[in-house]
Amino acid sequence: MTETSPFADSFFVNQKTSLLTQRRRAVAEKIRVILFGLGPIGAACARVLASRPDYEIVGAVDPDPEKAGKDISEALGLAQKTGVKISDKPGRVLARDAELVVHATGSYLDQVLPQLEQIITAGKNIVSTCEELADPWAQNPQTAEELHKLAKRKRVTVVGTGINPGFAMDTLPVALTAVCQDVKHVRVKRVVDATKRRRQLQQKIGAGMSQEAFRQAAALKAIRHVGLSESVSLVARGLGWKLDDILEEIEPVVAAQRIITDYLTVDSTFIAGVRQAGRGIVGGEEKIVLELEISVDAAESSDEIWIQGTPDLYTMVKGIHGDISTAAVVANTARRVIKAKPGLLTMVDLGLVSAH
Amino acid sequence: MTETSPFADSFFVNQKTSLLTQRRRAVAEKIRVILFGLGPIGAACARVLASRPDYEIVGAVDPDPEKAGKDISEALGLAQKTGVKISDKPGRVLARDAELVVHATGSYLDQVLPQLEQIITAGKNIVSTCEELADPWAQNPQTAEELHKLAKRKRVTVVGTGINPGFAMDTLPVALTAVCQDVKHVRVKRVVDATKRRRQLQQKIGAGMSQEAFRQAAALKAIRHVGLSESVSLVARGLGWKLDDILEEIEPVVAAQRIITDYLTVDSTFIAGVRQAGRGIVGGEEKIVLELEISVDAAESSDEIWIQGTPDLYTMVKGIHGDISTAAVVANTARRVIKAKPGLLTMVDLGLVSAH
Repeated sequence: MTETSPFADSFFVNQKTSLLTQRRRAVAEKIRVILFGLGPIGAACARVLASRPDYEIVGAVDPDPEKAGKDISEALGLAQKTGVKISDKPGRVLARDAELVVHATGSYLDQVLPQLEQIITAGKNIVSTCEELADPWAQNPQTAEELHKLAKRKRVTVVGTGINPGFAMDTLPVALTAVCQDVKHVRVKRVVDATKRRRQLQQKIGAGMSQEAFRQAAALKAIRHVGLSESVSLVARGLGWKLDDILEEIEPVVAAQRIITDYLTVDSTFIAGVRQAGRGIVGGEEKIVLELEISVDAAESSDEIWIQGTPDLYTMVKGIHGDISTAAVVANTARRVIKAKPGLLTMVDLGLVSAH
Repeated sequence: MTETSPFADSFFVNQKTSLLTQRRRAVAEKIRVILFGLGPIGAACARVLASRPDYEIVGAVDPDPEKAGKDISEALGLAQKTGVKISDKPGRVLARDAELVVHATGSYLDQVLPQLEQIITAGKNIVSTCEELADPWAQNPQTAEELHKLAKRKRVTVVGTGINPGFAMDTLPVALTAVCQDVKHVRVKRVVDATKRRRQLQQKIGAGMSQEAFRQAAALKAIRHVGLSESVSLVARGLGWKLDDILEEIEPVVAAQRIITDYLTVDSTFIAGVRQAGRGIVGGEEKIVLELEISVDAAESSDEIWIQGTPDLYTMVKGIHGDISTAAVVANTARRVIKAKPGLLTMVDLGLVSAH
C-alpha cells in the first residue's frame, strides 16, 4: 500500500524547502536523533526510539559528569553497546547531522529555555517532555512567542508532549469532540495509582509527608504535578475557546490507614498523594475542569472524560501508564514533528499521533 | 490568544500557494460552502455548518427535481429563508466561488465518482460522507490513485469521513495508540441501538425481515453497513501496517421477542438487525477485528476498544450518535480539509479534528 499512499515526498517539498535534502534523506534512510537529557524519562523515550527500525540515535547529551564518556547503552539499559557516547558538551553534539532532538531535562520553561534556544539555533526539530512547553502560551506567552519566532526563523518544529500534559487530559478530550456539533463543558478526571511507580513520582506527590510538611511544600510549589494549566490551555485551543483565566488548586490525599510501597511507608493521617484541579474560565463561565489524583492510596488508575454538548459523551480509558506511555507519546510524536510546519506547535496543532 | 497562536497565515502560503488569495480571504472572512446532496445526512451536515459563524452556504445541488428551485431552508429545516436555492445543475453551482463542497450522495465510490471528479475539476475541496471514500485504497486502489492525482493536480483536498467509517472504529482507536510503545492487536466493538433512529437505518439493517428474506438480501449486499473494510484499512494505515487481506462477515440479529419501533414491528424469530465483522490480516495474522452490531434489539449503544500492546488499553465511549455525530464530524473536518495539503487524504492523515 506504500506506493499508493498520500504520504508522498512532494508534501515535504512544500513544507520546508530549506530542509529538502535533509528530509528526503530522512524518508529514505533513518531519522537521526540526538538525546538531550538521559534521566529516567529521557532514557525511556530513547529506548522506544532505539527499538524502532526507522530511527537512529547519533548523539547524547547529559550534564551529569558521572555519565559523560559512557556508552548510551548503560543509561538506556540496552544489552549491547551502541558506539554512541554520552557527552556533557551540547554544542559539539548538536553540530552533528540530525533531524530531531528528544529533550527531557526539566518541567519548567524558564529552566530549560537556554537549552531549547541552543537546540533550535543548531537547526534541530525538538520533541520535549518539558511540561510547560506542552502549551507555553498558558503561562509564558512572551517566551512562547519568542521561541515560536526563533523556530520559524530556523525552520524547525518544536513540540512539548507527554501523557499529562500532552494527551490524557487535553489532546484526547479534544479529539473526542470531533463527534460533537457543539461543546458546552469539558470535565476530565485522571486517577493515577502511584503504588507501583518510580520513587521520584512518589516523592513528587508528597507520599509519606506529614500534613504540615505537605502544606509548606505545596505552598512553595515543591509538591505538585506540573502541567494542569497547560492542559486547560490545550483544551481551550483545540476548541477555539478564548480563556479569561486558568485556575489551579491542590489538596492532599490523606492516608486512611498505613500504606507500604516499595520505596516508603505512609502512616495513617499522613500524606498519600495529591488531588489537583485546573479550571478554565471562558466568557465568565467555568467551561473546563481537569481533576487529577496521584496517590499511593488511589483505586485503580483510570481516565474519565465527560463532554457536555451535542451529543453528550462519556469516555473511560484504562491502561494509560504514566512512564511507559509518556515514552510512547514522545516517540510517536517524533514522526509528526519532523513533518510539521516550522514553529512552536502544540499537540492539538499536529497531525494525528499514533503508534505508527 | 489569537495573535500569538501558531495558526498563522504564513502556514497556508507554504501549503497551497496557488490558492493563496482564496485562502487568505477564507481566514479573514467566511468559508464558502457548496452543498452537494441534501438527503437526511447532507442536510444534517449543512445545518451544523449553517449554525457556525465562520461558514457561509453559497450554493446547493440535489438531483431531486422536487427540490430544485426551493430555498435550502426547507431541506435544512431552518426557520428563515436563506436566499440560497437548490439547483439540479451541478456545473452552474460549482462555478461559484467557494472553498469547500460538502458531498453526501451515496455510499459506494463507483456510484459517486463522476460527482467527485466534477467537483475536483471545478477546483473545490471536498468533505464527503461516501463510506468507501473514507479509505478508498481499501477496495478501489486504482480509482483512489486516480482521484489522488487529479486532486493534487487541481490543488484541492478530498476527504471521506463520518462516524463509521471515519471515527469510531478507526480514527479514534488509532488516536489512542499514541500512548502505546507498540501495538500487537486492535479490537473494536460498536453497538448501535437503532430503536430511535431513522426509518432508513432500520430498513438498511433488515429490521422486520424474515430470516430467509435477510439471507437473500445480505447475499446481494442489499443489507449491510458499508465501511468496515475502509475502517480496517484506516487502522492499518494509522499504525503503518501492511494488510495482506481484509475480510468481512455478516450475520443477522434475530429478535427473541416482538419489538415495536416508531416505524416497524419485528416479530419473534424475525430480523432485528445485523452483526458484522471486519478483519485485517497482517503478516498472516489477524491483527485487527472490528465488530459492529446495529439492531433494534441492542442494549445501550456503546463503543469499546481493546488495544493489545505496551501498554494494553481498554476504552469505552458512550454517547456517539450515528446521525448527530456524523454531521458533527463532517462539519469539524471541514476546517482541517481546507488547510491540508492537496490530494485524496484520509482522517488519519489530517490534523487533529475537533469541535473547534
